[in-house]
Amino acid sequence: MKINRYEDISQIEREAKRDFIDRHSAFIHSDSKAIKGEKFKVKVKIGEAYFHPDDFEHYISWIQLWDGERMLAKTSFLAGAMGSAPSQVEVDFYVVPTKTMKLTALTYCTKHGLWQSDEKTVEVDS
Amino acid sequence: MKINRYEDISQIEREAKRDFIDRHSAFIHSDSKAIKGEKFKVKVKIGEAYFHPDDFEHYISWIQLWDGERMLAKTSFLAGAMGSAPSQVEVDFYVVPTKTMKLTALTYCTKHGLWQSDEKTVEVDS
Amino acid sequence: MKINRYEDISQIEREAKRDFIDRHSAFIHSDSKAIKGEKFKVKVKIGEAYFHPDDFEHYISWIQLWDGERMLAKTSFLAGAMGSAPSQVEVDFYVVPTKTMKLTALTYCTKHGLWQSDEKTVEVDS
Amino acid sequence: MKINRYEDISQIEREAKRDFIDRHSAFIHSDSKAIKGEKFKVKVKIGEAYFHPDDFEHYISWIQLWDGERMLAKTSFLAGAMGSAPSQVEVDFYVVPTKTMKLTALTYCTKHGLWQSDEKTVEVDS
Repeated sequence: MKINRYEDISQIEREAKRDFIDRHSAFIHSDSKAIKGEKFKVKVKIGEAYFHPDDFEHYISWIQLWDGERMLAKTSFLAGAMGSAPSQVEVDFYVVPTKTMKLTALTYCTKHGLWQSDEKTVEVDS
Repeated sequence: MKINRYEDISQIEREAKRDFIDRHSAFIHSDSKAIKGEKFKVKVKIGEAYFHPDDFEHYISWIQLWDGERMLAKTSFLAGAMGSAPSQVEVDFYVVPTKTMKLTALTYCTKHGLWQSDEKTVEVDS
Repeated sequence: MKINRYEDISQIEREAKRDFIDRHSAFIHSDSKAIKGEKFKVKVKIGEAYFHPDDFEHYISWIQLWDGERMLAKTSFLAGAMGSAPSQVEVDFYVVPTKTMKLTALTYCTKHGLWQSDEKTVEVDS
Repeated sequence: MKINRYEDISQIEREAKRDFIDRHSAFIHSDSKAIKGEKFKVKVKIGEAYFHPDDFEHYISWIQLWDGERMLAKTSFLAGAMGSAPSQVEVDFYVVPTKTMKLTALTYCTKHGLWQSDEKTVEVDS
């Protein structure tokens, strides 16, 4: 199956395409350093400049958080959780790292399929 | 199936039982008022005074967030996400309310089954 | 939260209520005996006499399979998997028992909440 | 993240590698033709010649069923559902097609990551 990837929207001329890419792309917001054995917050938020619908037939269904090839956690949403209005779906995960992490988010839109975020490296000091 | 409920641990004499109940109980941390149509943060955290193991054969597997009889979202965890050490699993959900919510969390421990939090009412001003 | 339970629909006079209860109730179809250590099929099917919608805003979202207080497996469905027409959602789980099981299914309809099946005992011969 | 793919194990010389690939690979077992609007069974089974462990720290965590870029359903397993012994995890999904499907299964092993099955085309007669 096809996994869509983020493209730098500042390089995209057509507004509709910028909107399409941005509103489906997950962004990982976290510190870039963590302390070994301590709880570490990782926000995943979908969209930076644009909003995604929350319609019954078209919504963000789930967000998975990965460290390399290892899955850490997943959040699923029911349609309507964002009040049935366009929004930027988000969730804060809390994980406890034991070594440097390479975080990616994988998300699923019920109409436009799978999207993989850019990878974010989090250095872990022991 | 049996759904365990929180009991006020200050009323429980035996330390082991206080620990058992507290470390399995989900607590909802949020404001008690929300604004209609605006994103609203709901933290669910398991345990207040005690820590739950994160062992492969014994961990908190998932947290569901409910508004009355309607499910809003669910987060699943893989064993090891908390560094394989005792911890208080938590997640921040973001929802957009359209009317007063009665939030409960339902959680599952792979060894000690289902636990339901106390209900928290969130008034929604339009 | 409220968990709805099956009621014997032959005792219910009103057709609409029989339909409502039947189309939301999960039924466990399996042998009543299993062999220890051998794969065992458990069909869970929702509805016996009536069909449930598969509309975007109203569908069967998931089915969990439990053995007593222990969760074995869960199947989630996306709206539309049943062709967007009324149907009886079903799934065949395969589990390997090591002792007598007390199976129940817990299911969720996006409009009418949680439903728990009757319990089915499966004797396990070693 | 890396998605592993099936390789024809008859072409692989080393037994350990054949075992590794086969025991992680999902195979779709279904008819190659379906009738529009009628329930259609799709078995997904992991492994043909070899067995995968069902240990707490190493098991098959979930199986997703896709039609092209559209997710249809997902089954998650708790460790121990296969009796904590090596086995071939399987599940029978039932879907109702409205047009030709291109089915793939995506699965996750808690130690060896993501695996994608070969695609199976199911022609749908109306």
